[in-house]
Amino acid sequence: MLEELKQEVCAANLRLVEYGLVVLTWGNVSAITPDRRYVVIKPSGVDYGSMRPEQMVVTDLDGRVVEGELRPSSDLMTHLELYRAFPAAGAVVHTHSRYAVALAQAEQDLPCYGTTHADTFYGPVPCTRHLTAQEVEEAYERNTGLVIGETFRRRGIDPAAVPAVLVCKHGPFAWGPDCKKAVENALILDETARMALLTRQLDPQVPPAPQYLLDKHYFRKHGANAYYGQR
Amino acid sequence: MLEELKQEVCAANLRLVEYGLVVLTWGNVSAITPDRRYVVIKPSGVDYGSMRPEQMVVTDLDGRVVEGELRPSSDLMTHLELYRAFPAAGAVVHTHSRYAVALAQAEQDLPCYGTTHADTFYGPVPCTRHLTAQEVEEAYERNTGLVIGETFRRRGIDPAAVPAVLVCKHGPFAWGPDCKKAVENALILDETARMALLTRQLDPQVPPAPQYLLDKHYFRKHGANAYYGQR
Amino acid sequence: MLEELKQEVCAANLRLVEYGLVVLTWGNVSAITPDRRYVVIKPSGVDYGSMRPEQMVVTDLDGRVVEGELRPSSDLMTHLELYRAFPAAGAVVHTHSRYAVALAQAEQDLPCYGTTHADTFYGPVPCTRHLTAQEVEEAYERNTGLVIGETFRRRGIDPAAVPAVLVCKHGPFAWGPDCKKAVENALILDETARMALLTRQLDPQVPPAPQYLLDKHYFRKHGANAYYGQR
Amino acid sequence: MLEELKQEVCAANLRLVEYGLVVLTWGNVSAITPDRRYVVIKPSGVDYGSMRPEQMVVTDLDGRVVEGELRPSSDLMTHLELYRAFPAAGAVVHTHSRYAVALAQAEQDLPCYGTTHADTFYGPVPCTRHLTAQEVEEAYERNTGLVIGETFRRRGIDPAAVPAVLVCKHGPFAWGPDCKKAVENALILDETARMALLTRQLDPQVPPAPQYLLDKHYFRKHGANAYYGQR
Repeated sequence: MLEELKQEVCAANLRLVEYGLVVLTWGNVSAITPDRRYVVIKPSGVDYGSMRPEQMVVTDLDGRVVEGELRPSSDLMTHLELYRAFPAAGAVVHTHSRYAVALAQAEQDLPCYGTTHADTFYGPVPCTRHLTAQEVEEAYERNTGLVIGETFRRRGIDPAAVPAVLVCKHGPFAWGPDCKKAVENALILDETARMALLTRQLDPQVPPAPQYLLDKHYFRKHGANAYYGQR
Repeated sequence: MLEELKQEVCAANLRLVEYGLVVLTWGNVSAITPDRRYVVIKPSGVDYGSMRPEQMVVTDLDGRVVEGELRPSSDLMTHLELYRAFPAAGAVVHTHSRYAVALAQAEQDLPCYGTTHADTFYGPVPCTRHLTAQEVEEAYERNTGLVIGETFRRRGIDPAAVPAVLVCKHGPFAWGPDCKKAVENALILDETARMALLTRQLDPQVPPAPQYLLDKHYFRKHGANAYYGQR
Repeated sequence: MLEELKQEVCAANLRLVEYGLVVLTWGNVSAITPDRRYVVIKPSGVDYGSMRPEQMVVTDLDGRVVEGELRPSSDLMTHLELYRAFPAAGAVVHTHSRYAVALAQAEQDLPCYGTTHADTFYGPVPCTRHLTAQEVEEAYERNTGLVIGETFRRRGIDPAAVPAVLVCKHGPFAWGPDCKKAVENALILDETARMALLTRQLDPQVPPAPQYLLDKHYFRKHGANAYYGQR
Repeated sequence: MLEELKQEVCAANLRLVEYGLVVLTWGNVSAITPDRRYVVIKPSGVDYGSMRPEQMVVTDLDGRVVEGELRPSSDLMTHLELYRAFPAAGAVVHTHSRYAVALAQAEQDLPCYGTTHADTFYGPVPCTRHLTAQEVEEAYERNTGLVIGETFRRRGIDPAAVPAVLVCKHGPFAWGPDCKKAVENALILDETARMALLTRQLDPQVPPAPQYLLDKHYFRKHGANAYYGQR
């Protein structure tokens, strides 16, 4: 079942390597079926070099394996909570990409310093709060997903307009309507984080881009009045 | 029409990828015909992987599409204003290259810290002022071009001697007599910006290179008394 | 003798190049036989480009060459002391990888700033004390191994749980049950050191990850209750 | 004439590209004949992509072209002064490699922070003083070579033991007994400069490596008692 989606998910995982976002077996991509009943995800700890679509694991939304001989990624429960919290997410990506991890480890949001950021993220990419010891011990992966949802709810951020997050002391998750977009968002997150670090080296107090520039660039590419790209 | 120029513009866009100056579909190159009546520019949001000369779009100087089935780059109006303001510009390049973006986001000029810079840019590469909310809302791309022209006029900088600019909170534009030179200038801008960041890490108060060294290196390569390269 | 181990050691040395951990002929990998009587190590100063399994040198635990026409790596005696001090080490790697060297030159431990680190190293990767002039002059390589053992003993660190070290003013050593794991640990050390430098740029006083997060991530991948990867 | 040396010089120039030390046509390598009568050098401003041994230019020690149809590198006179000042130099390399340029632009020596440096450079790599306006205007390239010689003489540094220099506000020169060694020294200079910048980020006041460690590492690889590599 779901052969096409397995191919997409496998290809998206390999694109993480091509884009330089993962080292060894770190990182994973999943996608959800349009009826939102099944999730296809990378198996845990498998080498990218030998990864094939047939190895992708199919689960239901409670994490039960429906098809596949390998164990799913150990981050499965985080992915599932994100699909539950963010109905617009069709695919989810997790990496340990360097510059996003640096912000997550420093427990800092990624501010919008310019148009490169504004083209994709409509405002700062938030960093979650720490999980408590109890949250980590009881259901670590599930609570990671829950705290991401909580962050967007509490701060009133639209996860479709800011399709990425920095998990405190951990690293980034990104999402999008499909695998291709979700992986691109993970790439853009790391690239804009990298630019942010360089910008802060030049001026530790640098102000964010003005709201009207953020509006212009974001809505040039997104929504009813977008005029970037081909129709 | 203009098949040769389309090939040049297409090849120059692909060189941006080869030089590591663009990610995904960010960045665009255009060129103007010698009679300065037509501009050939990259289509908007097209993958570099499948880009072909036939896809290049031909417009007049008011931005009307004269030939081509795809939409031109959304930055077209900026390119057109640059051709109007800078008669010596035969080609224009826009990228979001990392180190130039860092300076633009920090709202800082690129000072001339040494001979690597002086070989190509005769003095600091300026950073523009912020566009006002009104300028952004009314005609963003056109006003971006106008503010670049204003920057060079007000500060008395010769755009043929300093063939690049940092647009505040946005990123770099570079130009040159032809596509090859314009792309090289975009590359040299990012490389010298990178060196400048490293230099400033070592000494935040580092002084620029003395004027006589700038004179020597710039005029070794440019103008009537140049003696670099082959005749 | 030991043809299979020679192939593994040769392949592991070449993987250092592939992973970008070595420049020119810097770096070396060795492995010990299961009976812990013989060590196979890279020859000294040989180009990676032409390296072949037959060139690997076999020595006993006193450093006497048992087989091989070339001289063993000049760091042999350090490797031998590590095998003596750390019975769980089946392979040892030495590199001059950039970010680990930066910490070693700054005479600083690598703190655990997040889960990327915690997945592999159960706590800070220690930096050794300086060798004394006498230790350097009398038996430099041997004393380098001894001071590594001393560091782990004095600070009560389990070398199986923290399989790497930073040698003060020198660079990293890493180890593992076999060549593949030891090289991966050397790679992870440099990658986490790189992330640590970026994190510290954002916040020079950044606190380490909480102990309960370190526990969770380390034991998710190691020990009886691990659930990462395939069984 | 000198076909073999031309091939060596051409190959060494191409190795600069392979090692990532040059951008566009920046950088040049030359070598001197054993009788120290002729120098073979890269032509000025020629693309690395199409460079062939026949294009190398032969000059005498006064800079007169003895063979070759192209102009020699514009830095020729600097190379010639280095051959005059440093009798042990058989080949000279000039690049604008990033990290060495950063130090040169910051007008700072490269201190010896650890063994990676000590393996090749016996002490700090010096940065020259500024050239005066008069020195630049009268004979820029020649005076660049003279100020390098002056730096080593005044500071009592042996150019065979420290085979590289940082020219103030300009960039690095390196040398060695032959092309291969000179290019390696240029690479090691940039790599150790890169490590030094990272080390200084961690601790701006970091002390250099102790003299006894520098002695040990340098003499492990150089001189009568060396024991690194194969005999």
